[in-house]
Amino acid sequence: MKEIKAILQPHVLTRVIHALHELPYFPGLTVFDAAGQGRGRGQGGTFVLTDESLFFHKKKLLEIVADDALAPQIVEIIQKTAHTGTHGDGLILVTDIESAVRIRTGEVRGEAL
Amino acid sequence: MKEIKAILQPHVLTRVIHALHELPYFPGLTVFDAAGQGRGRGQGGTFVLTDESLFFHKKKLLEIVADDALAPQIVEIIQKTAHTGTHGDGLILVTDIESAVRIRTGEVRGEAL
Amino acid sequence: MKEIKAILQPHVLTRVIHALHELPYFPGLTVFDAAGQGRGRGQGGTFVLTDESLFFHKKKLLEIVADDALAPQIVEIIQKTAHTGTHGDGLILVTDIESAVRIRTGEVRGEAL
Repeated sequence: MKEIKAILQPHVLTRVIHALHELPYFPGLTVFDAAGQGRGRGQGGTFVLTDESLFFHKKKLLEIVADDALAPQIVEIIQKTAHTGTHGDGLILVTDIESAVRIRTGEVRGEAL
Repeated sequence: MKEIKAILQPHVLTRVIHALHELPYFPGLTVFDAAGQGRGRGQGGTFVLTDESLFFHKKKLLEIVADDALAPQIVEIIQKTAHTGTHGDGLILVTDIESAVRIRTGEVRGEAL
Repeated sequence: MKEIKAILQPHVLTRVIHALHELPYFPGLTVFDAAGQGRGRGQGGTFVLTDESLFFHKKKLLEIVADDALAPQIVEIIQKTAHTGTHGDGLILVTDIESAVRIRTGEVRGEAL
């Protein structure tokens, strides 16, 4: 099982979720409000300090737990539909989940998803 | 060390935390506001599109970091006390934590918990 | 690649971020609002039940994704600058990230950071 986390610009969230609803079996998702600062400050970066760059950008964190086999397709859907080509488009992270329990049924591991 | 994450219905949060306080040694916890959509859209699912189902459900994310030995007991307490038997009861996820540092003391790994 | 998560007292957040900006290459970060309860309830702990201790403390969760080589330095900066010596200073957790995709460029793995 994988946990897929995507740090997104808020305005693409609806588009990303609609695209995920096209999957044969939608795995469920959770959304969090967040604030972010992009990479690239420091000597090796391209960050320019302005009043605006001192502030945080509003972000949405999207979390999806999915079977190993489904994870690459979900990552691809998010990358395509969240892409605007501007800085701040965000990251998609994939982490291995050791185990999962569905609270309603008590199902464990892959069955729980 | 394990990170235990539980996506819960908000109204069970107090009950779950009270049950965790019964542990011989309470490991601490962090709570986040979240919004969720359940699994089951798509051809293979049972999702029915209604006005209501388009919206997000309010959720709470509970995070606990615990020793490997304590993790199964914590998962069991959460599953029992968060269970209502209705859709939306949520998931419990267990992930392996590589290392942890307690900021106040500088303790690392298992000692930090 | 590592995901570094730090559960911090809100008032140290600015100081921690300023210290991270001193890095040769700032890797970007995401911040979340959270609420927490410290460890130590139960027979084995030192928790004393008072009206105040029943409530949650406001916390900030800081998340940074960084190359394996950079992670220990980031943990050290956070530990030093978030440290006040009082209970509630929080934890720093390091988790292994399996893969990452930068949405703007499509870069994967280490390149994405």
